Amino acid sequence: MPITLRTLCLVNLGVFLTTMTLAQSVKRPREYGIRFGVLPTGPLNAITDVAGVRVGQVTVQQGASVRTGVTAILPHTGNLFQQKSPAAIYIGNGFGKLTGYSQVEELGTLETPIVLTNTLSVPTATDALIDYTLRQPGNEQVRSVNPVVGETNDGFLNDVRGRHITKQHVLTAIQEAKTGPVAEGNVGAGTGTVCFGFKGGIGTSSRKLPSSLGGYTVGVLVQTNFGGVLQIAGMPVGVELGKYSFKENLDGSCMMVVLTDAPLDARNLKRLAKRAFMGLAKTGGIASNGSGDYVIAVSTAYQLPHDSKTSLDTLALLRNDNTSALFMAAIEATEEAIVNSLFAAKTTVGDQGHQVDALPVPRVFDWLKKAGQTR
Amino acid sequence: MPITLRTLCLVNLGVFLTTMTLAQSVKRPREYGIRFGVLPTGPLNAITDVAGVRVGQVTVQQGASVRTGVTAILPHTGNLFQQKSPAAIYIGNGFGKLTGYSQVEELGTLETPIVLTNTLSVPTATDALIDYTLRQPGNEQVRSVNPVVGETNDGFLNDVRGRHITKQHVLTAIQEAKTGPVAEGNVGAGTGTVCFGFKGGIGTSSRKLPSSLGGYTVGVLVQTNFGGVLQIAGMPVGVELGKYSFKENLDGSCMMVVLTDAPLDARNLKRLAKRAFMGLAKTGGIASNGSGDYVIAVSTAYQLPHDSKTSLDTLALLRNDNTSALFMAAIEATEEAIVNSLFAAKTTVGDQGHQVDALPVPRVFDWLKKAGQTR
Amino acid sequence: MPITLRTLCLVNLGVFLTTMTLAQSVKRPREYGIRFGVLPTGPLNAITDVAGVRVGQVTVQQGASVRTGVTAILPHTGNLFQQKSPAAIYIGNGFGKLTGYSQVEELGTLETPIVLTNTLSVPTATDALIDYTLRQPGNEQVRSVNPVVGETNDGFLNDVRGRHITKQHVLTAIQEAKTGPVAEGNVGAGTGTVCFGFKGGIGTSSRKLPSSLGGYTVGVLVQTNFGGVLQIAGMPVGVELGKYSFKENLDGSCMMVVLTDAPLDARNLKRLAKRAFMGLAKTGGIASNGSGDYVIAVSTAYQLPHDSKTSLDTLALLRNDNTSALFMAAIEATEEAIVNSLFAAKTTVGDQGHQVDALPVPRVFDWLKKAGQTR
Amino acid sequence: MPITLRTLCLVNLGVFLTTMTLAQSVKRPREYGIRFGVLPTGPLNAITDVAGVRVGQVTVQQGASVRTGVTAILPHTGNLFQQKSPAAIYIGNGFGKLTGYSQVEELGTLETPIVLTNTLSVPTATDALIDYTLRQPGNEQVRSVNPVVGETNDGFLNDVRGRHITKQHVLTAIQEAKTGPVAEGNVGAGTGTVCFGFKGGIGTSSRKLPSSLGGYTVGVLVQTNFGGVLQIAGMPVGVELGKYSFKENLDGSCMMVVLTDAPLDARNLKRLAKRAFMGLAKTGGIASNGSGDYVIAVSTAYQLPHDSKTSLDTLALLRNDNTSALFMAAIEATEEAIVNSLFAAKTTVGDQGHQVDALPVPRVFDWLKKAGQTR
Repeated sequence: MPITLRTLCLVNLGVFLTTMTLAQSVKRPREYGIRFGVLPTGPLNAITDVAGVRVGQVTVQQGASVRTGVTAILPHTGNLFQQKSPAAIYIGNGFGKLTGYSQVEELGTLETPIVLTNTLSVPTATDALIDYTLRQPGNEQVRSVNPVVGETNDGFLNDVRGRHITKQHVLTAIQEAKTGPVAEGNVGAGTGTVCFGFKGGIGTSSRKLPSSLGGYTVGVLVQTNFGGVLQIAGMPVGVELGKYSFKENLDGSCMMVVLTDAPLDARNLKRLAKRAFMGLAKTGGIASNGSGDYVIAVSTAYQLPHDSKTSLDTLALLRNDNTSALFMAAIEATEEAIVNSLFAAKTTVGDQGHQVDALPVPRVFDWLKKAGQTR
Repeated sequence: MPITLRTLCLVNLGVFLTTMTLAQSVKRPREYGIRFGVLPTGPLNAITDVAGVRVGQVTVQQGASVRTGVTAILPHTGNLFQQKSPAAIYIGNGFGKLTGYSQVEELGTLETPIVLTNTLSVPTATDALIDYTLRQPGNEQVRSVNPVVGETNDGFLNDVRGRHITKQHVLTAIQEAKTGPVAEGNVGAGTGTVCFGFKGGIGTSSRKLPSSLGGYTVGVLVQTNFGGVLQIAGMPVGVELGKYSFKENLDGSCMMVVLTDAPLDARNLKRLAKRAFMGLAKTGGIASNGSGDYVIAVSTAYQLPHDSKTSLDTLALLRNDNTSALFMAAIEATEEAIVNSLFAAKTTVGDQGHQVDALPVPRVFDWLKKAGQTR
Repeated sequence: MPITLRTLCLVNLGVFLTTMTLAQSVKRPREYGIRFGVLPTGPLNAITDVAGVRVGQVTVQQGASVRTGVTAILPHTGNLFQQKSPAAIYIGNGFGKLTGYSQVEELGTLETPIVLTNTLSVPTATDALIDYTLRQPGNEQVRSVNPVVGETNDGFLNDVRGRHITKQHVLTAIQEAKTGPVAEGNVGAGTGTVCFGFKGGIGTSSRKLPSSLGGYTVGVLVQTNFGGVLQIAGMPVGVELGKYSFKENLDGSCMMVVLTDAPLDARNLKRLAKRAFMGLAKTGGIASNGSGDYVIAVSTAYQLPHDSKTSLDTLALLRNDNTSALFMAAIEATEEAIVNSLFAAKTTVGDQGHQVDALPVPRVFDWLKKAGQTR
Repeated sequence: MPITLRTLCLVNLGVFLTTMTLAQSVKRPREYGIRFGVLPTGPLNAITDVAGVRVGQVTVQQGASVRTGVTAILPHTGNLFQQKSPAAIYIGNGFGKLTGYSQVEELGTLETPIVLTNTLSVPTATDALIDYTLRQPGNEQVRSVNPVVGETNDGFLNDVRGRHITKQHVLTAIQEAKTGPVAEGNVGAGTGTVCFGFKGGIGTSSRKLPSSLGGYTVGVLVQTNFGGVLQIAGMPVGVELGKYSFKENLDGSCMMVVLTDAPLDARNLKRLAKRAFMGLAKTGGIASNGSGDYVIAVSTAYQLPHDSKTSLDTLALLRNDNTSALFMAAIEATEEAIVNSLFAAKTTVGDQGHQVDALPVPRVFDWLKKAGQTR
């Protein structure tokens, strides 16, 4: 599809919004003294605390009805196809359209950026990842590529049937991907999402294990668009705010991406991925029937080359016995990333005039403070 | 193995203890005003709220070193082999010795009582279930039976290497199984277990959906023997009590049994089972590397006959769309069952003089009350 | 993408070729007296022997380098989204790009036509299925759709990097789908495929169980593009023809679609699907590392409505005990469908001047006849 | 259970029979010129061609009704618990009672000998493996052990309900395990099995890859007790001999054990295991509803220590790209092992006077020779 002036404007708008969101310096839950678990965060409390990981986001807002976007996560700065990353995908509840599952499961590797977007734009994003891979220098002979694209359905606030994501949006998200702080809330693939009846979005968090437990970092990024009865740091906020009736929509989905510099093989990455789903449970998510809850876990500790002169890969892999602290880190960081997305998200009006309110953060904070759940 | 006077005494002791535990009328968390989720419980707040479900427990305590037992759950009162129950098993973390998995997965049915015991007594319990099935009137031609036996490792308090469970213990647990209240804490398969660094045991809970959501009941029974950072109704009790260091043992396992009268097929029972694992997550469990976390889910709504004159079974099955409330019920009941086990369990001294303290319930209650988390 | 004159011509060419292939009346193996197994075929020995099943194919051949196409299979004539078909997907070897897996696995239903095409055109075909579904009368409110698209890589004969399949090709394949005989060989998604070192393509076969075994029909359609050591009706043809060295490419993939009018639920459909993979094994396929071998199994015996006023679906489902004959049928029909694809395929020159020869059918026939393996 | 004179006699009888079977020097299919696939065998054409692998078998025949036994496979000569072997289990059809699945799946390791026996003796064998492990020097602190026991149901020829296998039988099989030739046919766990309507039993075979493909060895041992329509080297022997009606019992099971010295991780071992199931398909097996078809795959290339001072294991693992030849080897060796079991097995009269005839080898040979399928 040709890049028109209009698409370019959209892209610019996206980038602009991303920057703006960052500039707002919304306070994150942790800055309010809210704690999630017992392990320390990394410096940014973001997926980018895992060295080399980059995130790019394009926010697509247009007129009254388009509230969507793209979030791309790149595990390392090299050619991802030629230097594959060990990876696994855990399916919490499979009512979703994530693509790329079976090859990751079979071979244990990721060979493209991970892209998150809306449900009906998965094919566009997949095609864009093929473009990206085929065009990349060194990939001239590539005839097969396994894009990994996840999604949640932003169809309440966004004209999802209009499929407003273009290949260029996806390519821009990849090109603009960078290390450092990650915008949260109404940004990228989280632009139009709804979570626990409040405005959801993108959230991120990390944990850095003490050196006695290996010193590894686990970073998580989530796209929150699901239901249940919200708990924040364990407190039943959804009950307090009256947002838990089955008249509310429980459905929706959650995409979770877990990166770590721990040298896990695909089997242990799948176990790690499953723990992110446990983190979702701690926020009150129930993985309702209509929810597509997926976790993509990737290690940055080593790569598996596409071509090799030798038949063996020599790897130093973390033993099973040493995984438990990483499991706890993934649970904690996922829980916090989800709540971070809610704290950062803003009240949004979208398609068909639908409005979704932001979580009333001051009220939540007051209540948690009274309960002694802030420090 | 011949039944000696001594084994008989043990059995009697077990039954005696079970009764005694019941008689103690320990207050359950809910009686303290602690709430778990938003759905109402059944009348007993026990797995036996699902009509027809029976539980039998034999507690085996002997000398200084034997702290173990058996818990049996029977989904209906008929011949379980001839009238199989739809069932599924979800493996949260597979570091365990549950037997019977693959046939339940392949055929979607359960054909024996479910038995829980200690790790090294699984073969004995399995053999006992074969005895039970072969001897049952109507099963004279049975040459294949798929016992389902789960376990956790009580080897800190119990001389697990001694394998003190006999077939008779298991048969007694089945024979004594009854409807009505279920003993919790240091009883049956929970006699010697440890959970979050405190004395664990057997716990149970249930949810009864409002009629607008189908009116179904979901009952859960757990054998708690795992680690993490304890949360009660979301509150970080483990942190408050200083029980979360990685110097503590995080390992151990949790067996979860979910019964429901909702007419689910095996596929949806597996989805239901997975939600129990989410309930475990909400208590602060992390499914550590060494944990064997399994959920067995069974529907009592219908049976699938072993023999049939027709090639078809006509079934009225709950549609996917109507499962979400059941999922929430399984999460809530599992969370509550786990905490129930901790509230009921008593400080225990066992093998090698090891002592495990009961959860300091008054202190926990005071703290939750101050935080406004009791009603 | 706009529909240009050129694409329309391609479509017409595709349809023309399809017809032509049919007109050639190539003799099928069974007409040579070769037998596969012991069960009788349906009248057409095709997937369309299952009542209501339709197949549409568009063959895309253009210039020297484009040798590809689309094959669509529709399980019934109604609105597939509103009346979902029970379905399952078995992954034999997951080195492939099939999309739609997880939702079929989770919910047990298919809600779009099944489309087969080449590896890098999966996103285009997926997007076309979204178009198809959103536009269909009655689907005005649909905001989520799970397209099922399978593929094999025709990149030896086809300029796969050029992604020459358009959405219109896919929509045409669906629109033109019909009952009756199914073209085999160099047609639709099989236009550019290679199998056992010979020209592969589309193949189909069926089995009709005797009424004593239920009287059900099992139909199979395959897209053959894989390696190994070819066996035909068990005879080691690949050895005889010298086509088994590891210097030959063993990789490639096989898509298998199994339809049946037996009233199986998703669990038993998955078991049925696995048997198709056993049929592949009988032709000498080895599911090599680079092979993406998937089976999609669907029952036409009943549908599950998207919306329903009741919470239950009443279904008469085949008992586990009665599945074995269906399993045998799926094995036999898959084996025969694969060999049918080889008998029908024609020598092809394609991208970069690559030539792949047709199986030398007369020579094969003579050899099998001498061995007494024809009747 | 105490070891009585009678059990000892049985054990001795077992060992005697094993030796006798070996002494009979039955001709194996390959000695008749029958070929299975294209890869060369190892020197013994047995699982013991994989260096260090030992097999022990105890045949239990007693009176008119007892026709059963035990086969044990040990991957290396060290302490199997302290030096765990990388392993995987593939479930072809799960209607069986194999124990130990979930821990192997979760951790990727085997920590006991593999034991095969009859269906209702699995608990006895499991308990014996616990005995074996707990008593072994160095295992004094072991409180958890995951025995892997597989089974098929020999209840047509054997009084399976009598559970005549004792723990001592199992321990003897382990103690007597040795390298070198492996007895086939009516021996060990194959004493009472039935396959394709003929007498089945134990069979074994191997493949040795040429050095250009890595030079690795793949060895297979099977316990054959399943149905379908027998094919030998592809030829429809079952049809020729009239043994394929659905009046014959199609059910029964097949246990397959695959050993290799290729340095595969658990993920690739699972892929290898799946290929053994493809070998079963090539013999005409259909994995009928009642069949329990399991493959246990183990690598001898390295061990994973139970305890380690370091948190990492440094491993040189075979790349995905280099697995295809191993896959072919597993398929071929499994197919041949199954046919070997049939050639070696002898006509047997057992429980209730049931008689199962041996495969009429001369007649089969003549027919294959006429068809040109011997060399």
